[in-house]
Amino acid sequence: MPVQAIAWSPSGAVRIVDQRALPEACIERDLESVEAVADAIRTLQVRGAPLIGIAAAMGLVAGTRELRVAPRDAFLARLGRLVELLAAARPTAVNLRWALDRMARLAAATPGDGAALWERLRAGATAIWEEDRAMCRRIGEAGLPLLPDGAKVLTHCNAGALATGGIGTALAPIYLAHEAGRKLHVLVDETRPVLQGARLTAWELSQAGIPCTLIADAAAGSLMRLAQVDLVLVGADRIAGNGDFANKIGTYSLAVLARHHGVPLYCAAPSSTIDPSLKDGDGIPIEQRSPDEVKTVAGRRIAPAAVAALNPAFDVTPARYVTAFVTDRGLRQPPFAAD
Amino acid sequence: MPVQAIAWSPSGAVRIVDQRALPEACIERDLESVEAVADAIRTLQVRGAPLIGIAAAMGLVAGTRELRVAPRDAFLARLGRLVELLAAARPTAVNLRWALDRMARLAAATPGDGAALWERLRAGATAIWEEDRAMCRRIGEAGLPLLPDGAKVLTHCNAGALATGGIGTALAPIYLAHEAGRKLHVLVDETRPVLQGARLTAWELSQAGIPCTLIADAAAGSLMRLAQVDLVLVGADRIAGNGDFANKIGTYSLAVLARHHGVPLYCAAPSSTIDPSLKDGDGIPIEQRSPDEVKTVAGRRIAPAAVAALNPAFDVTPARYVTAFVTDRGLRQPPFAAD
Repeated sequence: MPVQAIAWSPSGAVRIVDQRALPEACIERDLESVEAVADAIRTLQVRGAPLIGIAAAMGLVAGTRELRVAPRDAFLARLGRLVELLAAARPTAVNLRWALDRMARLAAATPGDGAALWERLRAGATAIWEEDRAMCRRIGEAGLPLLPDGAKVLTHCNAGALATGGIGTALAPIYLAHEAGRKLHVLVDETRPVLQGARLTAWELSQAGIPCTLIADAAAGSLMRLAQVDLVLVGADRIAGNGDFANKIGTYSLAVLARHHGVPLYCAAPSSTIDPSLKDGDGIPIEQRSPDEVKTVAGRRIAPAAVAALNPAFDVTPARYVTAFVTDRGLRQPPFAAD
Repeated sequence: MPVQAIAWSPSGAVRIVDQRALPEACIERDLESVEAVADAIRTLQVRGAPLIGIAAAMGLVAGTRELRVAPRDAFLARLGRLVELLAAARPTAVNLRWALDRMARLAAATPGDGAALWERLRAGATAIWEEDRAMCRRIGEAGLPLLPDGAKVLTHCNAGALATGGIGTALAPIYLAHEAGRKLHVLVDETRPVLQGARLTAWELSQAGIPCTLIADAAAGSLMRLAQVDLVLVGADRIAGNGDFANKIGTYSLAVLARHHGVPLYCAAPSSTIDPSLKDGDGIPIEQRSPDEVKTVAGRRIAPAAVAALNPAFDVTPARYVTAFVTDRGLRQPPFAAD
């Protein structure tokens, strides 16, 4: 069974797995307030674009429990302030703003006072979560035929249950193939600098009983040459109209290596990741993160303090390297028009 | 000035810089016995193919100091056992076996008893070291024309002063170009799992005042795509007769990426790294190291304890990816006959 990254606690708080502590400890936290949810997002206790959106929506519900007795105006005024607080937690995350806007619109469009608004928000947050869960499953079903019994799959970063409300995006076909009794072997890129592969993907696959082997990112090419990789399955943070896509740094190298070795590469993502307003990948902004992520591991310095380091969080893979996009609307090929 | 990685201690022990402690601390150790040298090689206190050969030769001298009073037969018998002990410390590096064989032949060809044999071995080990120092410089001179003013060079692992008795192999042209006043910029792959790039190359280049930038291994392909790499310069642990070569895991991926982007890749190595008895790279044994090197960084676990990890220390790059071999005999092209 895939892990469940988020849930309601019995008292209506947002229950999360603190991803900072993985894999050393699996700590569940009940976030009782919007402030606690914002802090969890800011400090990467909760990560993964879909999961951040769900956590924020659920946080609005948890954080307005005591406002059920408030009149409509007071409820909406307070809700507006809480929305801004959450939106500021990770200002670049698109899903976060999307989920918050949807919740705010829902409240505004609902008649009645605090109790009615709150009930509607609770249903709305649950809907965002359930839609994400269903979307993950549809991605999994679309990708299932790509994973015959015995398939050796390479994945990068974490696009799994820990990044979504369901069974993930890139990992969704893997979970369904395992569920169907197919024997798979998953090679997991450790994914420096933040090690999402080693810390999160290896952990959640192990929890689900799916055989996997961790490798250094630099070993992927050699394993392809030795015919140890049948396909590469990665997620996406943003997909341009022509099919160029941004994903965790290292994805582009994998794509070139896969092409060179005749290994298919699939990009799994919800259709909402497609941004048809972007003509191609050149328009995707690449976040440059702190050099300290490269110069340290788990808080320990691994390079001279004075040395410079480059830390692009993402790279762009041109569409021509992608065998197919695995989406909640099936296997798709670019160009993508506005949905 | 490049650092000096090895020396005789005043009492005749092998004095090394413990490379495990870099860059946090620069600790010198005096290795008094062959066992201590073998252990230092096995645990990567001393690493780099040429430096391992030098350390082994010097270790035979340090470890036979008390045999100077022994009769010839006893000296040679013990020497044979010590040679085998050292040879087993790391299987892939051809220089280790080469240096040990040379020392054994030297002893066998020298008349007299323990004292005479030992003196000859001491001269022989010093000669191996001095030849390596001169060899590094000749590699540097051969590679110098490849590095015009402003060149952006990508290197992997550590093939520098810390890997040799002199100014390195892959880094030798860089040191000489810097000495000649050319402005270079060196991109340094961190080189997981053991992080020789982050810990050693970034450190020794910084010590020498050469501008460098550390990157995660997975970022190399994206930087090539963005035209941030003019050439790739790597070392070699073993070169087959047809020019296939073994080097640190990740070298093969770089070679494929370089070829894909029209970036030249040069392999810098002493001619002694060529093993013409091997027809091609398929014959090069690849050392599989402990999974714990992948599952931990600097002693801290980064992956679930139970998860499997693959840790091939090297990969093989076919000769067709190499623009030229930068050797102590100039720029060379395979096939290589017995020297």
